[in-house]
Amino acid sequence: MTIQEPVTARPAGRPRSEKAEKAIIEATLDLIGEGMGVSELSIEAIASRAGVGKTTIYRRWSNKEDLVVDALSTLKAPLPVLGGVSVRDDLISLLDAMRSEAGQARSRCVMNIAMSEADRYPRLMDRFMKRAVVPRKEAMRAVIERGIGTGELRADLDVDLGMAILSGAMLWHTKWGPAGDLAPDLAERVVDAALAGIAAGTP
Amino acid sequence: MTIQEPVTARPAGRPRSEKAEKAIIEATLDLIGEGMGVSELSIEAIASRAGVGKTTIYRRWSNKEDLVVDALSTLKAPLPVLGGVSVRDDLISLLDAMRSEAGQARSRCVMNIAMSEADRYPRLMDRFMKRAVVPRKEAMRAVIERGIGTGELRADLDVDLGMAILSGAMLWHTKWGPAGDLAPDLAERVVDAALAGIAAGTP
Repeated sequence: MTIQEPVTARPAGRPRSEKAEKAIIEATLDLIGEGMGVSELSIEAIASRAGVGKTTIYRRWSNKEDLVVDALSTLKAPLPVLGGVSVRDDLISLLDAMRSEAGQARSRCVMNIAMSEADRYPRLMDRFMKRAVVPRKEAMRAVIERGIGTGELRADLDVDLGMAILSGAMLWHTKWGPAGDLAPDLAERVVDAALAGIAAGTP
Repeated sequence: MTIQEPVTARPAGRPRSEKAEKAIIEATLDLIGEGMGVSELSIEAIASRAGVGKTTIYRRWSNKEDLVVDALSTLKAPLPVLGGVSVRDDLISLLDAMRSEAGQARSRCVMNIAMSEADRYPRLMDRFMKRAVVPRKEAMRAVIERGIGTGELRADLDVDLGMAILSGAMLWHTKWGPAGDLAPDLAERVVDAALAGIAAGTP
């Protein structure tokens, strides 16, 4: 598959504050990754870890929740640009973006911790889902629907079921699969197995 | 598919203590589900919630960790008895056991909270995995290997990839799928889609 230029999803900061912004995001993720819950997390602690003043944080984020949503969103790989020609290639691109982000140990750990707080911070998690998860689900849905339209996929395919099989296989590898890095060709193998099915063909 | 008798995986308690044991397990799960981390959880708190004395707990469990492993294990559906004839039917049975346990809101919630502590309690989580997760992975692996042997599944199928597609599709539904109960026929639909593949057949 082709290496594709990622689409930048983050809002552009003022150049002079970019370095501080990055330090603040990293400090937030570090603290969450070290087990500090969202409730314990404070602007003070983040400022101290990032080596910036609190006002620098407040210039960019009006509250902790906004900052956490932004910080978590940076862990998600940007949506890949899709070729729009072959449904197989586009599915591989989408799954490979999942692979690249899940391959980072810190990303997995922080995301697991944050997700465990979803019940306590429904509004925060809802915003995070809308920002980082929904767009990729919609992108995959669009590709599957296109494939049904072009005849590359079964005409009677349930779109949710297709998404579940494809994304689920990636999710399984990050949750229950062998420890360590995901194989570089995992996305391609998942897509090909899902397309062709695991049953033996008719003899 | 056939309704099958579950295999009882829990050790048999003395009859007179069964009711207390159940209350203790329920109290432990309740407290975890209410957001009490494993570190904050105490035998005192569990005894008080269960309405039993601490000695009743210590008669059965020598420490908190043993109790938590037992309590979490009750959330996992028991391994279904497999027919051993059709690989399709056996895969549906295994996936349907995942569906039935994931369908319980408390089960999902407690499991998410517990999993978020995996980094802090590696030994506890390792025991839980060995007790509750590994056996079902091995059962599915055995069925897939049997299917490859009998020719029901592709001869060149990567067993891990097959497991990822099947279990992953169920996992996806519990994580990212539509809210609410999982459809009763979900396991069957996942297995049939995975077997036949999502690509359109050759014309």
